[in-house]
Amino acid sequence: MEAGDPLGMHRVLPESDPDQPLCLPQRATRLDSDPDKVFESELVVEVETLNIDAASFRQMEEAAGGDSAKVGELVMETVRKRGKQHNPVTGSGGMLLGKVRRVGGYVSERGVLPGDQVATLASLSLTPLRLTRIIEVRPASAQIDVEGTAIIFATAPFAKMPKDLPQRLALAALDVAGAAAQVARLASPGQTVLILGAGGKSGLLSCVEARRKVGRSGKVIGIESHVPYAKELLAFGICDVVLEHDARDAAGVRDRVAELTAGEGADLTLSCVNVPGCEMAAICATKDRGKVYFFAMTTSFTACALGAEGIGADVDLFIGNGYAEGHAEHTLELLRTDNRLRTIFDRRYC
Amino acid sequence: MEAGDPLGMHRVLPESDPDQPLCLPQRATRLDSDPDKVFESELVVEVETLNIDAASFRQMEEAAGGDSAKVGELVMETVRKRGKQHNPVTGSGGMLLGKVRRVGGYVSERGVLPGDQVATLASLSLTPLRLTRIIEVRPASAQIDVEGTAIIFATAPFAKMPKDLPQRLALAALDVAGAAAQVARLASPGQTVLILGAGGKSGLLSCVEARRKVGRSGKVIGIESHVPYAKELLAFGICDVVLEHDARDAAGVRDRVAELTAGEGADLTLSCVNVPGCEMAAICATKDRGKVYFFAMTTSFTACALGAEGIGADVDLFIGNGYAEGHAEHTLELLRTDNRLRTIFDRRYC
Repeated sequence: MEAGDPLGMHRVLPESDPDQPLCLPQRATRLDSDPDKVFESELVVEVETLNIDAASFRQMEEAAGGDSAKVGELVMETVRKRGKQHNPVTGSGGMLLGKVRRVGGYVSERGVLPGDQVATLASLSLTPLRLTRIIEVRPASAQIDVEGTAIIFATAPFAKMPKDLPQRLALAALDVAGAAAQVARLASPGQTVLILGAGGKSGLLSCVEARRKVGRSGKVIGIESHVPYAKELLAFGICDVVLEHDARDAAGVRDRVAELTAGEGADLTLSCVNVPGCEMAAICATKDRGKVYFFAMTTSFTACALGAEGIGADVDLFIGNGYAEGHAEHTLELLRTDNRLRTIFDRRYC
Repeated sequence: MEAGDPLGMHRVLPESDPDQPLCLPQRATRLDSDPDKVFESELVVEVETLNIDAASFRQMEEAAGGDSAKVGELVMETVRKRGKQHNPVTGSGGMLLGKVRRVGGYVSERGVLPGDQVATLASLSLTPLRLTRIIEVRPASAQIDVEGTAIIFATAPFAKMPKDLPQRLALAALDVAGAAAQVARLASPGQTVLILGAGGKSGLLSCVEARRKVGRSGKVIGIESHVPYAKELLAFGICDVVLEHDARDAAGVRDRVAELTAGEGADLTLSCVNVPGCEMAAICATKDRGKVYFFAMTTSFTACALGAEGIGADVDLFIGNGYAEGHAEHTLELLRTDNRLRTIFDRRYC
């Protein structure tokens, strides 16, 4: 029996350009998703639900003119072509929920058995996937129920689904599991934390974690342009201030945050807005030597790098890492302990 | 006389989509580069040389089939269409050298007078530019001598050219002025620093600064695939180890760095390679809770974010900020004090 590579190199199909060294599965154009090829370093999963990355789902909805069935067809097409749900336009993926079918001999220490329900925490953009059919597209939650199989590599993070929380709720939260764990590392007591897209999924988790970290002497400012989300966030009461404002309006955001911070700007800004063009609002609203953390997959590397340089903004710019040790448990714990957060998630994603 | 906006919003031409809030100059499709419109918050510069961003120059060279004259035409076309040298493919710019023609009344405290020679440190991707002609394209240094005018906004960093260093040398170094200053902040004594693309311009500056910071107990590992650069770097003697290796080969880089670090990986990895697809080598070769700093403009945000997540790499990912307080002086000082570095720069860029 073959071992397979822990990073999944054995599933990467060669590129058309033979000069390129074999790349990792995320960067590969195509993966071999054949579940009948057996490797000892893999888990094989029967897929039940795909949880599509927000930026990717939005792009496919636009391309499909809002037709859910067509979104399903786009997913089938991508998976057929690439062997993974790796949106060729946005470059992003999502995650999935399913039941373990087979546990390779070299990954038995990962603590799951056939029949266990798991959610992948590695992106769909690197997860070998084969689909036989689309069952239902659910736009409200960006989830798609499907029939198919997926492969989890030895290094790919996943979570055993909790028994005390509804499946869809846990899946929705685990999709952005990195957010709260990263905020916990970056925010300190007394600081001002600004959250762009504060009413969305990762935004809400960031608000709750920021509130815990900055304490009473700190300040949490939430910016949200979607009116129902802004109202919900205001009613939640977790932020000191909720501003209804378009995060693409850099000068406007900067001015409103300046008013609330005696002209200084935020110590830490988290960008959770899944539309392009919000980089400069985050940078302009952050104080000198502050930190800007970009969770949104629509973030442009060059817009950040050159934009900060261009206005002489001496801030640290972070690419949101979706993985942090213990992030899944951390995020589920927030849902278990904060009833108001749980209520919003229940209503929205269940 | 009009003041103009410190961020340059007054030069932004409206987008075709009227729903979009007015964006900052870097994100704008087109800028008004008319030097006859006078604003008190601006410097007007007579341009002598464009120093094109390496990724952008390489892209244009490829598009032009290696024909220098055609690269010049591409630049003229971009500037005519956009009012700035903002490469529409790579999204990057570069910087420029010129003589101050006019100093607005509100920026007299910036310390320059008409006739002073300055280099912009804000990207060309946000600098209003009008060109009347291309004088010479110099592929070896990615520099283009031109005739034209540019605008520097009140918040845009620039440097007065030093009198004790040759112009082209200073310009080449200032183009990557952010590198050494950021390395100085991130590296600590005793650490292992890995530099991908260590023989290039920002790579060399990063090596010198890393060496100063980690000291004798630390380790500097340079990876360079371009053989002449790798040889030059080895002869320089600033790195503990120089490896000739393709930085797109993630698994290979990881394995070679693992051999040199008892399997641990680097504390800090700097990616200075201006070709796409080097994200995962940097991430795979960095130890748990280490830092990865991406200077290269070819870096893909999603490749980093999803790639790190996908292999469970708990590392901090930084977008290279081209600005840091005092960065220009910091970089020129390295050239003044390190004769071997100076020699390489002299030979290559003068």
